Amino acid sequence: MPEIERKFRVAHVPTGLGDGTALRQAYVAVEGDVEVRVRSDGTHHVLTVKGGAGLERDEVEVAIDTAEFVDLWRLAGDRHLEKTRHRVDLDGVTAELDLYAGALAGLAVVEVEFASRQEAEAFDPPDWFGAELTGAAGWSNAALARHGAPPDA
Amino acid sequence: MPEIERKFRVAHVPTGLGDGTALRQAYVAVEGDVEVRVRSDGTHHVLTVKGGAGLERDEVEVAIDTAEFVDLWRLAGDRHLEKTRHRVDLDGVTAELDLYAGALAGLAVVEVEFASRQEAEAFDPPDWFGAELTGAAGWSNAALARHGAPPDA
Repeated sequence: MPEIERKFRVAHVPTGLGDGTALRQAYVAVEGDVEVRVRSDGTHHVLTVKGGAGLERDEVEVAIDTAEFVDLWRLAGDRHLEKTRHRVDLDGVTAELDLYAGALAGLAVVEVEFASRQEAEAFDPPDWFGAELTGAAGWSNAALARHGAPPDA
Repeated sequence: MPEIERKFRVAHVPTGLGDGTALRQAYVAVEGDVEVRVRSDGTHHVLTVKGGAGLERDEVEVAIDTAEFVDLWRLAGDRHLEKTRHRVDLDGVTAELDLYAGALAGLAVVEVEFASRQEAEAFDPPDWFGAELTGAAGWSNAALARHGAPPDA
C-alpha cells in the first residue's frame, strides 16, 4: 500500500513529551530502493518491505512472532538502530518524532504521514520542524543503521 | 534455522514423475548473502529469508497471505521465476527435482536436504544426478531469477 510521508530535521524538541515507545529495527536486506526491515517495540514485531523513493513509497507489513524476529535480527548482522518514538498531535495530522539512541544518540527526525499527495504538499510545518529531509538518501533509517549519522547531521 | 542442502545438475530426468507442484517465486531484495524471497504454490504463500552460503545456510520462513504475496511480488519487479517441483524418494532422503519454466525452460536442478553435515557428506548421489552445484553462485535461484540461465548451463 502506498505510504505518503514527509520527513524533517528537528529544530528543537517540543516540551511535554511523554515516555514514547522504544523501537529497535534492523535491515535484513536492501537492494536498490527496496528495503526489508524488522522492527520491535518489545511486544509487537513486524517485517516491513518498502519500495520506491521520495514522498510516496510502497509499503507492505507482515506481523511476525518473537522467534521469527530474533532469527531475522541475527541475519541483519550489525545493520540495526534504536530510537524512541513520540507521537505528537499537530493540526489534524500526527507527527512521529524519533529520538535516536545508541550510536546515533543526539539525532532527531520527525515524519508526518498523509492521506494524499495534495494533503502532503499543503502541509505547513510547525516552528519546531527543521530542514526537510524527504527523499534524502543519507537520512533514511536504512542508511543510518548502516553508516551512522550523515556528515550534515 | 540452519538448512543443510546439496544441489546438483540433472544428468537425466527420471521416468515416472507425477504432476509435481507448480511454484513461482520472486526475489524482493538480495544483499550480500542474504536473500529475501516470496514463493507461492497457488494456495500457500511464504516469505523466506536465507543467509550464508554453501552447504549450510540459515533460513527463516514466514507465512504470508495472498494480499501480502501479491504486494511483495510487485515490489520484486522482474526478479522472478517459475518451476515445477517433483519430490523423489531416494534411499532415506527426499530429492527435490526442479524443472524450470518460462524464460528458464529446459533447465533442471535437484536438491537434497539433510539433517546433519555428516549425513550430507556421506550422501551418494544416484546415477541421474549430474555435476554438483552446491554453493555455485550463478546457479542460485536468486541469480537465475535475475540473470537467466548461467553460461555453463
